[in-house]
Amino acid sequence: MLLLHRAVVPGLRQTYRLRSTSSRLCIQASSTNDSFQPQHLSLTISGDNSTTGRWRVMGALLGLGAVLAYHDHRYTVAQESPPMYTKEEVSSHRSPETGIWVTLGSEVFDVTEFVDLHPGGPSKLMLAAGGPLEPFWALYAVHNQSHVRELLAQYKIGELNPEDQVPPTLENSDPYADDPVRHPALKVNSQRPFNAEPPPELLTENYITPNPIFFTRNHLPVPNLDPDTYRLHVVGAPGGQSLSLSLNDLYKFPKHEITVTLQCAGNRRSEMSRVKEVKGLEWRTGAISTARWAGARLCDVLAQAGHQLCETESHVCFEGLDSDPTGTAYGASIPLARALDPEAEVLLAYEMNGQPLPRDHGFPVRVVVPGVVGARHVKWLGRVSVEPEESHSHWQRRDYKGFSPSVDWDTVDFDSAPSIQELPVQSAITEPQDGETVESGEVTVKGYAWSGGGRAVIRVDVSLDGGLTWQAAELYGEVQRPRKAWAWCLWKLQAPVPAGQKKLNIVCKAVDDSYNVQPDTVAPIWNLRGVLSNSWHRVHVHVTP
Amino acid sequence: MLLLHRAVVPGLRQTYRLRSTSSRLCIQASSTNDSFQPQHLSLTISGDNSTTGRWRVMGALLGLGAVLAYHDHRYTVAQESPPMYTKEEVSSHRSPETGIWVTLGSEVFDVTEFVDLHPGGPSKLMLAAGGPLEPFWALYAVHNQSHVRELLAQYKIGELNPEDQVPPTLENSDPYADDPVRHPALKVNSQRPFNAEPPPELLTENYITPNPIFFTRNHLPVPNLDPDTYRLHVVGAPGGQSLSLSLNDLYKFPKHEITVTLQCAGNRRSEMSRVKEVKGLEWRTGAISTARWAGARLCDVLAQAGHQLCETESHVCFEGLDSDPTGTAYGASIPLARALDPEAEVLLAYEMNGQPLPRDHGFPVRVVVPGVVGARHVKWLGRVSVEPEESHSHWQRRDYKGFSPSVDWDTVDFDSAPSIQELPVQSAITEPQDGETVESGEVTVKGYAWSGGGRAVIRVDVSLDGGLTWQAAELYGEVQRPRKAWAWCLWKLQAPVPAGQKKLNIVCKAVDDSYNVQPDTVAPIWNLRGVLSNSWHRVHVHVTP
Repeated sequence: MLLLHRAVVPGLRQTYRLRSTSSRLCIQASSTNDSFQPQHLSLTISGDNSTTGRWRVMGALLGLGAVLAYHDHRYTVAQESPPMYTKEEVSSHRSPETGIWVTLGSEVFDVTEFVDLHPGGPSKLMLAAGGPLEPFWALYAVHNQSHVRELLAQYKIGELNPEDQVPPTLENSDPYADDPVRHPALKVNSQRPFNAEPPPELLTENYITPNPIFFTRNHLPVPNLDPDTYRLHVVGAPGGQSLSLSLNDLYKFPKHEITVTLQCAGNRRSEMSRVKEVKGLEWRTGAISTARWAGARLCDVLAQAGHQLCETESHVCFEGLDSDPTGTAYGASIPLARALDPEAEVLLAYEMNGQPLPRDHGFPVRVVVPGVVGARHVKWLGRVSVEPEESHSHWQRRDYKGFSPSVDWDTVDFDSAPSIQELPVQSAITEPQDGETVESGEVTVKGYAWSGGGRAVIRVDVSLDGGLTWQAAELYGEVQRPRKAWAWCLWKLQAPVPAGQKKLNIVCKAVDDSYNVQPDTVAPIWNLRGVLSNSWHRVHVHVTP
Repeated sequence: MLLLHRAVVPGLRQTYRLRSTSSRLCIQASSTNDSFQPQHLSLTISGDNSTTGRWRVMGALLGLGAVLAYHDHRYTVAQESPPMYTKEEVSSHRSPETGIWVTLGSEVFDVTEFVDLHPGGPSKLMLAAGGPLEPFWALYAVHNQSHVRELLAQYKIGELNPEDQVPPTLENSDPYADDPVRHPALKVNSQRPFNAEPPPELLTENYITPNPIFFTRNHLPVPNLDPDTYRLHVVGAPGGQSLSLSLNDLYKFPKHEITVTLQCAGNRRSEMSRVKEVKGLEWRTGAISTARWAGARLCDVLAQAGHQLCETESHVCFEGLDSDPTGTAYGASIPLARALDPEAEVLLAYEMNGQPLPRDHGFPVRVVVPGVVGARHVKWLGRVSVEPEESHSHWQRRDYKGFSPSVDWDTVDFDSAPSIQELPVQSAITEPQDGETVESGEVTVKGYAWSGGGRAVIRVDVSLDGGLTWQAAELYGEVQRPRKAWAWCLWKLQAPVPAGQKKLNIVCKAVDDSYNVQPDTVAPIWNLRGVLSNSWHRVHVHVTP
C-alpha cells in the first residue's frame, strides 16, 4: 500500500503516473492548507490484481467538454461528518500551491490531483478553480453523466455553506436557450453544444446540401450577433493598419464564390469507437456537407491590412465570437502561406448557398478554408491576426490531431503531432444502409467521396463481397478544377446481385489524384480522439429471397 | 466455328473482342492483298472448353517493351512449303489496308491482327511495319522470350529471300554497347534497357544516396552527349522567343539546390505481382533514392522564353535525347501551373550530389520535379515546350497510370485514368530483411518513408506482430520545409523481442501531414501495370532460440 500525503509530497499532480503503475493505491486526502484539519476524508482505491487495479484514464473530449472515465476500480469513502466551507474559503483555493477546489451543488471538491488528468486539459478545469462547476457543466452537457459524478465524488472534501450555494437560477440557466431552431431531420449527436448530421438518405440526395440539413458542429452556444454592429477586427502588419470591418466593408472586397465540402475530423468516429472506446460525438457518415460559399478572399483582406508572405513560417489565427463563461473564444489557425495564396481561395464567407449564413453556420461571417478540416473554418468570426506560432487555442493544440493506435490518454503528447489541416481521402456509402434488405436482381449503391488539399477523387471502387472483387462506380457532380477540387463527388453503382446471395458485404474505397487510397480497416488507424476515420466504409445488407 | 477472312471482314483489327468471348475460334489467314495467293497458311485456335479456349491477353509492359502472353490455347500450323518474299514485298505491307508485315531472321509474319493486341500500343509495333524486328528487339530485350516467339510463330506467312535477310552485324548490333559501366552492388532488374536498384542494406545506410548506387530507371539506351555541343531547345511562347541553351547558358540562371527523393511508380512491384501476375520490372523496395540536385529553376527558364500562367490548363512537355531506332524520344509532361510555381522548385538539374550528372542519371541535364513520380523527371533533356495537352508520349498516356483491380489488359482504357503525378505515401523496411534470423532480446528495425506533393511524413508505425500492436519509430534525416518536404525521412525502432517469440511478422506504415496512410494490403490496390504499390511493408524473420 502506498500512502500519499498531499501536503508533503511534491509533484503530486503527476500521481496518474503512479496510479498507472501501482496495482493498489490508497490516497489519504488532506487539505493542502495546514490551517485546516487534515485527513477529514480518506479515499482508498484498490484493485483485485495488477491488471484491474490500474486506473485507466480513458477520457475523451467532446469539443472542449471533457469526460474522464476510469474502469475496474473500487473505492470507499469514509462517511464521517463532513466539514463545512464558505464560498470565500473555496475561492482561496485556486492554485496548485493552495490546492484547487471546486463546488457542485452543496458539495466541495479538492481536484488538485485531478487537474492534470482532465482530458480537456488542465487549463479548462482551472477556469472553474475556486468556484462552482455549474456554469461550465451547463455549457458542456457531457459532464452530466453518472460516471463523471462518480469520479468527482472521490475528491469530495466537505459541504458548502448552504447560504453560499449556487442559486437555482444560475444552476438552471441555459446558455443554449438562445440557440436557433433546427431542422427535425437532423440526427442530433449532442444538444449542448449542438452537433448534428443529416441522415444518409438525405445527405447525397443533392450535390449541394440544403442549409437546414448541413451538418452542424458547434463547440459553444450560438452567439446572436447584430449585423449592423458586427465588426471584424483584423490586426495589421507592422507598419500596416489594423482594420475594423463592418459587413458593408466586407462586401466591398471582390466577391468570390466557390463550392466547398466541409468535413469534421470526427466524421465516421462511430466506426472507430466500435474498435475501442473513444468518447466524443458519435458521428456516423454525415459530418460532411457541401455548400456554395461566397465572401471576400482572406488574401485580399490580409493584403489591405499590410500582410505579405514572410520568410519564416507564420500562421493566421482566427477567433470566434462564441465563448465560454470566462470569455475564452473558439479559435484555430492556418499557415499564412495558405491564407495568402489566391489559389487556395480561403474565404471570409458571408453567404451560404445564396443566403446570408444561417446562425448555426457562423452568421454573419465565417472562415472557409477549402480542402482543410472543418475545425479551421471558424464561425462567428471576430478577430484575425498573423502570429509567429499556431493559435494557442485548445482546439488547435490539444485536439484535432492524429496519433498512433498505441497512444492513450496516459501517454499522449499533443505537441508531438501536427494539427490536422488537409484531410485524407474519404468515401462512404449512403445507400443502402447497414442492416437494410435489398431486392435480389440488381442493387444500387450510392455514396460520396472527397479528399483534402484540393485533390480530386479519380475513382471509387465498390465491392459487394467484402473486398474480394471490385467494380468502379460512376462519379458525378460539379466538375472540379485541377488542384482545386474543393468539393466532393457523388457516386453510384448499379450491379447485379449474384444469384443465390443472401447477404451482401458492400464496401467502398476512393482514390484521389495523388493516388492516395483509404486504408482497409479501422483498427490500425484508431486514435484516442477518434479522428481521421477513413477506412473502407462497409455496409451489410440482406437480400430478399 | 467462326471463320474470319481478313480481306472481307471489316473491323478485323478488333478481333480480340471476338476472341475474348468465343470459346472456339478458327482464323483462316489470308493476305489482304488480293494479288497474293490467299490461304497459304491456316491457323486454328481452339480450346477444350469455354474457359480454357479463351484467349487471354495478359500482356504487360516493360517500359516501352511489350510482352504479350496468352494461356491455355493450342494451335496447329500447317507445315507446307512456305512462300518466299523479297524485302521490297515486305516493305509494301505497312498499313492496315495493305496488311502489316514484319520479318525476324529468315521468317516473314503478317501481324495485321496482332497490332491492336500489342501491349506496348499499336503505334510501337507499327514502327517496325514493313521491315525487320531485330533493331527493336535489340532495344527491348524483353521480347527475347520463348512465349513471345511462340506467339509470333502463329502469324508466320512465309520466308524471306535469303539475300534480304538482316545482316548479322545489324542482328547482333547492341544499341546498349555504349551504356556506362555500373556499380556491382546494384541489383539489376533489366540489362537492356538498364534498370537496377541498390540493395536494402545499402539504401538507408546514408540519407543522401551515393550516385553510383542511386536506383536507375532507363527506358532506352543511354545517349552519349557532348557537353560542348549540347543544346536545350525551349520553345518560346507566342510573342516570346525560343531558346537554344548551352550548358554555359543554363549556368547563368540562378543556381538552385534542393534535396529531392525520386521514386519509380513501380517501386515494390514485386509484392504486387505475388498477388497476380503483372509483368514488368520486378522492383523490390529499392526503386527510390535521394540526392542533392542543383540547376536552373524551370520557372526562370520558361519565363525567359516568355511563358506565363494562362487561364486554361496547359502542360510543359519534356523530350529526352534518348530515342529508339525511329527517333522516338522518351517524353513526359507536367502541368504548367507546377512548372511555373517557384514554390514547386522544378529544376533543370545539371548537378547531382555536387557532381555533374552521371550518364545514367541524365548527363548533362535532367528535369527534377519534386514530389512527383520519377517518370516525369526526364533525363538527357533535349526539348521543352508548353502545350495545351499532356505529352503524347507513350509513357504519359499509355503507361504510369493506376486502375481498379478489376481492370485487365482486355478492358483497360488508358484515357480513363489521369497520369500519375504526385505519389501517395510510402514506407518500407530495409532492415532486417525477409527470411533473416534476428537475435532474441532486442530487434532493430530500419527503413525509409516518403510522400508525394511535398507532404511530410509525420509518423511511422511499426508492428512486430503483423499489425495487431504498433510502436512509433524514431524519424531522422534532413529537416523538411512546410509544404516542401521533397525528401524522405529515415526511421529506426529498437524494440524488445517478446520473450519466447520464434518468429516476427514486422510491418511498417507511414502517415503524412495530410494524414493519408498506407493501405493494409496489396490485393485491393493491385493494378495491371503494377504501379503505386504502397501497402504496409511486411518482413518475416526468425528469432534465434
